[in-house]
Amino acid sequence: MRRALELAARGPARGVNPRVGCVILSPAGETLAEGWHRGAGTPHAEVAALAGLAPGLAHGATAVVTLEPCDHTGRTGPCSRALIEAGIGRVVYGVDDPGRASSGGARRLRGAGVDVEGGLLAAEITDFLADWLFTARAGRPRVTVKWASTLDGRIAAADGSSRWITGPEARADVHLRRSLADAIAVGTGTVLADDPALTARDAEGGLLAEQPVPVVFGRREVPAGAALGNHPHEPVRLTGADLDADLAELGERGIRTLFVEGGPTLASAIVAAGLADELLVYLAPALLGGPRLAIGELGIGHIDGALRYELAEVDRLGRDLRIIARPAAADREGI
Amino acid sequence: MRRALELAARGPARGVNPRVGCVILSPAGETLAEGWHRGAGTPHAEVAALAGLAPGLAHGATAVVTLEPCDHTGRTGPCSRALIEAGIGRVVYGVDDPGRASSGGARRLRGAGVDVEGGLLAAEITDFLADWLFTARAGRPRVTVKWASTLDGRIAAADGSSRWITGPEARADVHLRRSLADAIAVGTGTVLADDPALTARDAEGGLLAEQPVPVVFGRREVPAGAALGNHPHEPVRLTGADLDADLAELGERGIRTLFVEGGPTLASAIVAAGLADELLVYLAPALLGGPRLAIGELGIGHIDGALRYELAEVDRLGRDLRIIARPAAADREGI
Ligand SMILES: NC(=O)c1ccc[n+]([C@@H]2O[C@H](COP(=O)([O-])OP(=O)(O)OC[C@H]3O[C@@H](n4cnc5c(N)ncnc54)[C@H](OP(=O)(O)O)[C@@H]3O)[C@@H](O)[C@H]2O)c1
Ligand SMILES: NC(=O)c1ccc[n+]([C@@H]2O[C@H](COP(=O)([O-])OP(=O)(O)OC[C@H]3O[C@@H](n4cnc5c(N)ncnc54)[C@H](OP(=O)(O)O)[C@@H]3O)[C@@H](O)[C@H]2O)c1
Repeated sequence: MRRALELAARGPARGVNPRVGCVILSPAGETLAEGWHRGAGTPHAEVAALAGLAPGLAHGATAVVTLEPCDHTGRTGPCSRALIEAGIGRVVYGVDDPGRASSGGARRLRGAGVDVEGGLLAAEITDFLADWLFTARAGRPRVTVKWASTLDGRIAAADGSSRWITGPEARADVHLRRSLADAIAVGTGTVLADDPALTARDAEGGLLAEQPVPVVFGRREVPAGAALGNHPHEPVRLTGADLDADLAELGERGIRTLFVEGGPTLASAIVAAGLADELLVYLAPALLGGPRLAIGELGIGHIDGALRYELAEVDRLGRDLRIIARPAAADREGI
Repeated sequence: MRRALELAARGPARGVNPRVGCVILSPAGETLAEGWHRGAGTPHAEVAALAGLAPGLAHGATAVVTLEPCDHTGRTGPCSRALIEAGIGRVVYGVDDPGRASSGGARRLRGAGVDVEGGLLAAEITDFLADWLFTARAGRPRVTVKWASTLDGRIAAADGSSRWITGPEARADVHLRRSLADAIAVGTGTVLADDPALTARDAEGGLLAEQPVPVVFGRREVPAGAALGNHPHEPVRLTGADLDADLAELGERGIRTLFVEGGPTLASAIVAAGLADELLVYLAPALLGGPRLAIGELGIGHIDGALRYELAEVDRLGRDLRIIARPAAADREGI
């Protein structure tokens, strides 16, 4: 299974499909074939492995695969059937497939008389697939809401100036985390006010290797000459009128992690809708006062309605503080 | 000098005067007498030590004293003169007296032919006398502005409810720090809205041994039956119209440390006036949104005007975070 996980890691980290690896072993325990999934539209790991075998060789063999074989016909046929047809005698897999359409492979295999065992190296594989599993279960990307504010919760001075609230270390961290996210979202308010590039850059302004897909929420038009037009990825436009539906659409596009960078109106709407899976707050030891708040209105009347999180990480970054908080256990959905 | 510092520590930690200790040594190095200051209106340490000596015995002796002998006639005469008159040949002291009226003792002693050396154990004694030295130099108490807020800087929900934003560990810490402060301040807005006791209490609600003097800023009357009336100390009333003058008055009353507990109007006024020597922020990993902010208006138009602090301490207290910040070096006055 450890070998299967190594193979899985060769697949692409982004995209709709999970990274899966498969090893086919003879009854005597020798490796007969290996395979991994290379991304949407290409064969699944099990099929890729079977393809490396001469006909008949799979008979009575064991398939070791990191994820429960799918039972679903998408751009490729169900792996469960491919394994049955090849005559595989035993399937050992890591974690259950949480997908609504794709799960059920283990059941079908057992129904066909295949010996099936799940849960091998499950913790490690769950960790490896965390973002994909989250999206598969929740039907939407994992959402990080980020802001950089003063100790009193301001993101800009009264005149709108905000360069810079935090120091260079905090700003570099933002760019790194942007580049690790599948997509980055802002509202039209921020596009119109700041004309942001929405790219992940190094200290010299050069583009980092991985760039998130820019997503703009809102009905207003993005001006023709906006900096966004130079982004390596085509921006995704969503109205934000139905945030659940919008996020589901992003999930369907293979976006597993969404980095919400503001402004305050969009961030507050996402937080109020209970869609923030993580708060990433860069806190400068400074005070500004005034009207420009990181979070505006959340519709909370009484203290009992406070949205509660748990501190996951607290670190100093240069002169600033980075706080990562996640929904408190009591507030977390069962996902 | 270490012995003199031990003697000093026997004096009262609160009050107008510093804690000072004095040892008188014979030319051969034997201890002839010891003294320490027992609080305003009682003899200074040097005079207390001399009082323990038979007349003439001080002749040519060395006085070791933690603070530069005063040169000022208050409720007691100047120590410089008392030492000269007793015939002391040498004075060794720890830290210079920063007082405007009282300093100059070393100069007068030298003028009278006494051998004077300052700076012995200065770092340790400076630390021991930190609050008193601050008040003596700045002419006002050291001010800590405290608040408990959510990550988005709110101190209450829209309806004013705020019990509890932070958990029991943070609240216990507040009471401990209250009891360590000489005085605790609120505005009339808080008195009228919350009728606070302004006492330092343990988890069971019992009074801690040391209680800060309650100070109420503002012109409005404190209602006749207010909880403040049961405070072990008589409340001090100040209008807040001239914060510098008000704080100077507190300093003259022997208040070295002032714990400002709000509300937001008073806290913002003190911060905006540059009078916050320390921010003590209890940050709950929660969001509330809405209008009830820890800090309101500071009159800052542009980001360059941000009030900058340095993180001095960041600690987790139960589920919350305690942040202590002090004015950034560039913003600090030369005090
Ligand atoms: N310091 C920082 O970290 C930081 C970061 C970002 C922005 N900012 C500042 O924030 C300011 C912009 O603030 P903003 O609040 O106007 O920007 P915003 O949140 O980026 O945009 C607000 C717009 O988002 C759209 N939207 C989409 N879905 C929504 C929903 N569910 N609920 C509400 N609105 C939704 C609406 O646009 P339509 O009206 O077009 O439908 C709304 O007007 C700028 O001054 C910018 O500099 C600061
Ligand atoms: N969660 C917390 O940690 C916390 C702590 C404290 C208070 N609170 C809440 O805060 C609310 C009260 O807010 P608040 O802002 O009205 O209370 P506040 O700051 O306690 O009182 C405001 C009043 O202070 C007086 N004041 C004195 N000097 C001043 C100066 N230099 N500048 C401005 N005002 C000065 C004025 O009173 P006059 O008009 O009488 O002159 C002013 O109206 C309550 O709802 C309370 O529950 C929450």
